[in-house]
Amino acid sequence: MTPSPAPLEFWFDFASGYVYFAALEVDALAARHGRSVLWRPFSLGSSFKVTGARGLSSTPLKSDYAARDWQRLARLKGVAFAPPADHPHIGLPALRAFYTVREQDEGLAARFGRAVITGYFSGQVSLNEPAPLAALAARLGGDEAAVMRGMGDQRIKDMAKAQGDEAVRRGVFGSPWIFVDGEPFWGADRLAMVEDWLAKGPW
Amino acid sequence: MTPSPAPLEFWFDFASGYVYFAALEVDALAARHGRSVLWRPFSLGSSFKVTGARGLSSTPLKSDYAARDWQRLARLKGVAFAPPADHPHIGLPALRAFYTVREQDEGLAARFGRAVITGYFSGQVSLNEPAPLAALAARLGGDEAAVMRGMGDQRIKDMAKAQGDEAVRRGVFGSPWIFVDGEPFWGADRLAMVEDWLAKGPW
Repeated sequence: MTPSPAPLEFWFDFASGYVYFAALEVDALAARHGRSVLWRPFSLGSSFKVTGARGLSSTPLKSDYAARDWQRLARLKGVAFAPPADHPHIGLPALRAFYTVREQDEGLAARFGRAVITGYFSGQVSLNEPAPLAALAARLGGDEAAVMRGMGDQRIKDMAKAQGDEAVRRGVFGSPWIFVDGEPFWGADRLAMVEDWLAKGPW
Repeated sequence: MTPSPAPLEFWFDFASGYVYFAALEVDALAARHGRSVLWRPFSLGSSFKVTGARGLSSTPLKSDYAARDWQRLARLKGVAFAPPADHPHIGLPALRAFYTVREQDEGLAARFGRAVITGYFSGQVSLNEPAPLAALAARLGGDEAAVMRGMGDQRIKDMAKAQGDEAVRRGVFGSPWIFVDGEPFWGADRLAMVEDWLAKGPW
């Protein structure tokens, strides 16, 4: 019996615009190559402290360009892109809700992560409001009360924060970010390259 | 008689790694859509002063990733990628040589720009040494003595510097950068999107 190939790792900050486009495609891409995906949200602020970068939306010149680029990508892919007016959210509640859900079930966490991203970028879900996030988790099969508790639990808070430290340790400085058997790919525009890598294998 | 469509504008810093991959393809891409290309080198440092960014090769985490990504892209495209050991060059002589050549002939300037980039990223051409740059321009049909003089001419120096100010004024913060009828596209990985834009027209 051949061992299953390792899952892809999909690292992202919930409030990163390009994540939305990658989140719509990453599971199907992996499945075409017999792979699953581990969703790994983290706070990009941890990496920014090392690289000196700032978020797109708070960087002169880049913010205008990114807003335009997101709309072009949405048109190209035939989807809407409508983050809330106060984008980007810091979104610690979403991050902590995710890691609470993940303690219950990795697959449920992936579905929750995807639902949070698509909800946020269609203006339906806040990354900062605990009760609606817990209700969303419950609609997907999670334990609403446990998620509410988790968002206030110091152990979960530490776990969510540690994910940012782990990102820096592994060289992750942007979002979205995909590891294929340890090989790093940065950016939604690298999905074709990830697919090529999965098809042809490492060099 | 239909007027010719406007040329694409190809903005770049000579020492930017991703420029190499775009430079190999941009003229053919434009030609497929009946367009020519204006090559517009500038010093990316002007934009960095506004965005607070630093060069890839001097940014922690990013520098390691970029070096790896360039080699992957080179493999994918079947080309070599071998910048000099002291990459990135600041390259003011190359920039000034370009704008001297451009005063002679826009098409010659494009050929010169491409030759400098492919030479630099195969370790054959320095961006900092005036005499070999003037000799390269001469081999392509330029006036060697004029290029040597131009690199020391305050008027050309000012012209080269002004290109950086113009970049900032027009929102250019990265390299390579392409304008299609004023529409901005950042990055070598945006060539497919540029092609889509040329095929379908503006929204």
